[in-house]
Amino acid sequence: MASNSFGETFRITTFGESHGKAMGVVIDGCPAGLALNENDINEFLNLRQGGKTKYVSPRKEQDKGEIVSGIFEGKTTGMPIAIIIKNKNIASSKYESIKNLLRPGHANYTYLKKYGVFDYRGGGRASARETVCRVAAGAVAKKILEQHKIKTAAFVKSIGNITAEISTKNIVNLRKQTYQNVIFCPDQKAAILMMQEIDNIIAAGDSIGGIVEFIITGLPAGLGDPVYERLDANLARAMLSIPASKGFEIGEGFKSAQMKGSEHNDIFIPRTGDRQVALTNHAGGVLGGISTGMPVIGRVAFKPTASIMQPQKTVDLKGKAKILKLPAGSRHDSCVAIRAVPVVEAMCALVIVDALFLNQ
Amino acid sequence: MASNSFGETFRITTFGESHGKAMGVVIDGCPAGLALNENDINEFLNLRQGGKTKYVSPRKEQDKGEIVSGIFEGKTTGMPIAIIIKNKNIASSKYESIKNLLRPGHANYTYLKKYGVFDYRGGGRASARETVCRVAAGAVAKKILEQHKIKTAAFVKSIGNITAEISTKNIVNLRKQTYQNVIFCPDQKAAILMMQEIDNIIAAGDSIGGIVEFIITGLPAGLGDPVYERLDANLARAMLSIPASKGFEIGEGFKSAQMKGSEHNDIFIPRTGDRQVALTNHAGGVLGGISTGMPVIGRVAFKPTASIMQPQKTVDLKGKAKILKLPAGSRHDSCVAIRAVPVVEAMCALVIVDALFLNQ
Amino acid sequence: MASNSFGETFRITTFGESHGKAMGVVIDGCPAGLALNENDINEFLNLRQGGKTKYVSPRKEQDKGEIVSGIFEGKTTGMPIAIIIKNKNIASSKYESIKNLLRPGHANYTYLKKYGVFDYRGGGRASARETVCRVAAGAVAKKILEQHKIKTAAFVKSIGNITAEISTKNIVNLRKQTYQNVIFCPDQKAAILMMQEIDNIIAAGDSIGGIVEFIITGLPAGLGDPVYERLDANLARAMLSIPASKGFEIGEGFKSAQMKGSEHNDIFIPRTGDRQVALTNHAGGVLGGISTGMPVIGRVAFKPTASIMQPQKTVDLKGKAKILKLPAGSRHDSCVAIRAVPVVEAMCALVIVDALFLNQ
Amino acid sequence: MASNSFGETFRITTFGESHGKAMGVVIDGCPAGLALNENDINEFLNLRQGGKTKYVSPRKEQDKGEIVSGIFEGKTTGMPIAIIIKNKNIASSKYESIKNLLRPGHANYTYLKKYGVFDYRGGGRASARETVCRVAAGAVAKKILEQHKIKTAAFVKSIGNITAEISTKNIVNLRKQTYQNVIFCPDQKAAILMMQEIDNIIAAGDSIGGIVEFIITGLPAGLGDPVYERLDANLARAMLSIPASKGFEIGEGFKSAQMKGSEHNDIFIPRTGDRQVALTNHAGGVLGGISTGMPVIGRVAFKPTASIMQPQKTVDLKGKAKILKLPAGSRHDSCVAIRAVPVVEAMCALVIVDALFLNQ
Repeated sequence: MASNSFGETFRITTFGESHGKAMGVVIDGCPAGLALNENDINEFLNLRQGGKTKYVSPRKEQDKGEIVSGIFEGKTTGMPIAIIIKNKNIASSKYESIKNLLRPGHANYTYLKKYGVFDYRGGGRASARETVCRVAAGAVAKKILEQHKIKTAAFVKSIGNITAEISTKNIVNLRKQTYQNVIFCPDQKAAILMMQEIDNIIAAGDSIGGIVEFIITGLPAGLGDPVYERLDANLARAMLSIPASKGFEIGEGFKSAQMKGSEHNDIFIPRTGDRQVALTNHAGGVLGGISTGMPVIGRVAFKPTASIMQPQKTVDLKGKAKILKLPAGSRHDSCVAIRAVPVVEAMCALVIVDALFLNQ
Repeated sequence: MASNSFGETFRITTFGESHGKAMGVVIDGCPAGLALNENDINEFLNLRQGGKTKYVSPRKEQDKGEIVSGIFEGKTTGMPIAIIIKNKNIASSKYESIKNLLRPGHANYTYLKKYGVFDYRGGGRASARETVCRVAAGAVAKKILEQHKIKTAAFVKSIGNITAEISTKNIVNLRKQTYQNVIFCPDQKAAILMMQEIDNIIAAGDSIGGIVEFIITGLPAGLGDPVYERLDANLARAMLSIPASKGFEIGEGFKSAQMKGSEHNDIFIPRTGDRQVALTNHAGGVLGGISTGMPVIGRVAFKPTASIMQPQKTVDLKGKAKILKLPAGSRHDSCVAIRAVPVVEAMCALVIVDALFLNQ
Repeated sequence: MASNSFGETFRITTFGESHGKAMGVVIDGCPAGLALNENDINEFLNLRQGGKTKYVSPRKEQDKGEIVSGIFEGKTTGMPIAIIIKNKNIASSKYESIKNLLRPGHANYTYLKKYGVFDYRGGGRASARETVCRVAAGAVAKKILEQHKIKTAAFVKSIGNITAEISTKNIVNLRKQTYQNVIFCPDQKAAILMMQEIDNIIAAGDSIGGIVEFIITGLPAGLGDPVYERLDANLARAMLSIPASKGFEIGEGFKSAQMKGSEHNDIFIPRTGDRQVALTNHAGGVLGGISTGMPVIGRVAFKPTASIMQPQKTVDLKGKAKILKLPAGSRHDSCVAIRAVPVVEAMCALVIVDALFLNQ
Repeated sequence: MASNSFGETFRITTFGESHGKAMGVVIDGCPAGLALNENDINEFLNLRQGGKTKYVSPRKEQDKGEIVSGIFEGKTTGMPIAIIIKNKNIASSKYESIKNLLRPGHANYTYLKKYGVFDYRGGGRASARETVCRVAAGAVAKKILEQHKIKTAAFVKSIGNITAEISTKNIVNLRKQTYQNVIFCPDQKAAILMMQEIDNIIAAGDSIGGIVEFIITGLPAGLGDPVYERLDANLARAMLSIPASKGFEIGEGFKSAQMKGSEHNDIFIPRTGDRQVALTNHAGGVLGGISTGMPVIGRVAFKPTASIMQPQKTVDLKGKAKILKLPAGSRHDSCVAIRAVPVVEAMCALVIVDALFLNQ
């Protein structure tokens, strides 16, 4: 089954394993004439990589995207754009000791059941390392969205029980403040509490879940296609395809299940300009699967990282009881929701570009 | 954009509008040799239609699926199976009076922006009427799953603030009790409270949201494909494609965002039989996008029905202030989550059959 | 495998067996606002059906397409358009006697090997009856092409050893003359010889092959997508999907294999208007898989009908020697190339509409 | 439009331009557990590249495929396999002088019309250089086919007016003899005449067309899916997607249009073993779009290379009359049909693997 592609008209195909030679993405369907260079890619890759803090698992060298095809004289040609990101700073050998153990919450068991083999080095293709390709492709998608004045942002909404209070009025500032913060939370007060929480979690050899909120502005009304290619359905699929995500909601989401129609319905207000707006945006910018022109807002839930430093009971490949103890120095994010922020933003951009092109 | 198809190997294509001649679905990819007749379809259609209670919007005559193709001597032939469900008991004229008003929370605005036209009769294709086709196709999918001893169920988990306590241990009983209850909630105590809540909502001319939980058992480990065709990602897309759904979660879902890794990881226990199981199932039966062999469990949030009998402020097509008052006798579910139960179950079946066939 | 759909953005899904209740097609991706009624469909269906002559196998009653969905107030709504064509005048019982015999040149053997079952009544889904759905969909595609001033035509180029001499300069006249002729050959002299040939073939209880030529004019330069969605590649697939077709060529086709580059290259001539034209059109309107703006011209080879009235040696399902003698009164075209003419034209229209929409 | 992918379950996505950094292909859907290394790829790449003769355009250094992902401990993992082939020995500057001229028979005009830009260096993505990716992927497909005892071969059937007489009885010998011959024609007598013809063509600064025949043996009956995914339809699309191809036929192909049913029908003979065979194979191994179990045989017509050394009349980008004179030392095949042989074989393998997996 060919399952490493995403999108219909702006389609990405990704490849690579965490400790293989390189990660890569082929972008098919990018229009000709778009100015694009490796800096455009690398700026977004840098955001994903984060600073050299303890809050995201470090690779010592920065990821660099190399554009292999699809560019001529500084512009896209309409041909597929392949971007390669070499894997450096790899320490595979330490995984040898645990290669025969099932890892709780981890994909090695299911890969073994499905494929009979698992590239255990750093998690192989099941590693969040794969998301570097989404971000590289998202950088291209964002350049296209710029031409349509469509903006995307994502940020940490909560970590554990700490929830940020964030205004989404000014998306440009919001995005700036997000990426200036080491844990990608633009609410400075909450961010401090979150960092303390993570400090505790790291000290305990544990991990913690979190929620990422996304927002997309500048969308025209009319994007998305009933019945099965609804904008929100495609966003849901995009977000649930990110490693460790366990939930998706749009607008009020799960809260809407507790609301009455008279509360939830967004009342249209008499039009003054050429855009029809509503008093509220409980719907999150989508009605009947089609964009309303209001901001598209939603949230993605991430479970706590499966890899924790505490010893865990488990079994080996034969089902015999064992203790799993990750090797000292293993690199894992204690809260994957943080690094997921640019990934969620990238997936927003990919979904919207596809919807835009399908709408033409 | 061709967006009325769902699935890759077991692909359904649906058509029809609420007040058009008929609804229909073409099922492509059903294996040859499956015993199938119209009763198989109609039993599941009857569940969707509910009894003649006030809790689901009534059509006086039962829906009947007519199999037009793909069956020979009582069995499928491998050729496409077309099922037609005639629309009866239609009262379109009453919608005339409101055809030029934007309806808050409703898709008529977005359809108008996208297509320049909206078949306003009963909501046209944006109506939940479309889900009759999913249920008809789901009936066929469920017959295939039976051969693999895979079972599906769905039920009302909550309505407004009332949440049911439901054991998912015995899926056969669970399903039976669900469909015996007029609001599809197998927790009898909660069901009574929910009915009272809906009585109040109807009296107030309002509507209310709810959550549907689904469960799938008997799955082998190994279904679902990384990276973009994960089982949970495809379930998410399937569920968000149902009208009025606003959220999806798998396993602990949004709750996992508040959990620690040491709590959330499902600990594998020493194997006694041929299936590797874990102590808990926080993951909801999916790791790395691939089934673990444990039950797949998740939830779908439904917003309150957009159509309410209370007058609402709105605007007309030109943006001028108006009052929307639905005509007396309009048929709307006061809580769409109820009728969504067999639809959620049908979508589960469709996703799983596709994953099964892709895995062969 | 879902294999009853054709096209990406303008996608048709067909269903139905020769002697089942009905044939049908769902058209997904037709833009809103197109004036469309059943007459538009039926006019083209009538061409496929031919007059009541011996040259095409007769069904006594005319095919009538019933539009079930996707139209509101006389125009398309952007929703899927389902068209049903009831099967009438069916005489299935006569096939009983030969149901256990393999039929030389016929698909019953391969269907049996693949599916383990074959709906032998009139050929089931393997019958050319399926092409009625393509023509119905083609009628809609042609209405879209009209808006872009793109015209399509097809005609009988040869039957057996008789080849027509036909100028393709005036496509409107060409099409008119084609459909006025009972065997769809606009070269009146050749047509008479062809009819004589068919008379002889019928008398001998035999069948004969033929070639259909197609032409598409008014295309803008730039349709079709390298590398794997070339316009000519998609035309090739479209044509080889028609029952009994065995070959496809574009431009000079197989003749080009005998030519030199200095002969075959079409020399561009100095531009006078806004279209760049060439002296010749050996390429058949496509270079590098993309339309040049010159007419797209090609040919499709059809084998002689497999069903012949002569007795044939064969075997039964167990491989034992038998004689196949089709029942008297069996309805078969003696030359399928004739009835294939509107089908080839319909497939041209479907491919071009898809390429147009993909190019937007 | 995403058009650089081919196949459904075994899907290749290719990228790269003739004079860019590298060519590459991502293979998605290769099963886990297949032994695969770079030699497997390079052996087939070497065949494509040909010896250092004048009959195929030389690149001085051999193409080397580098496997970047999808292999672990010498075997495939089920993850996407990316193969990169670096471009070496590039001489782009000589194309500068002709970059503003339309090249007769060449894709630069249509690319310019479609994309507004053309990477003129060596033909960019429109170059036959792209086929190196198909051959690399075909090498993997052939390893899969080996496991199913399915064999493929292709050879030069004709060049200009010279046609080879070739028995296809022993496919192993046939393939061996083909690749031992410098122009890939296993009929030694014809090959000598063909070489003389090409000598003359080169001397005249011209080019010549040719026909490639392919054969696939060992197929089970039952591959291919009616109606639109017929095996022959997918082969047709595959072959027409090869640069310079202008026609496709299966079995008797265009010759069948001159035959009678009584001649063309392949008579089944009483079964002795477990395979049902027929006396003849006019059908070319496919009935109703599904394999019969007999060898699949067909032919692909290639036009003469568009790039010829003779001066040609043409126009520039503005439509003004010019003379095109390719720079001395330009590397072009005088007969692309020769180098197309392993490409045709590769496309056979890709189509068959896809059909195999879809049939499971």
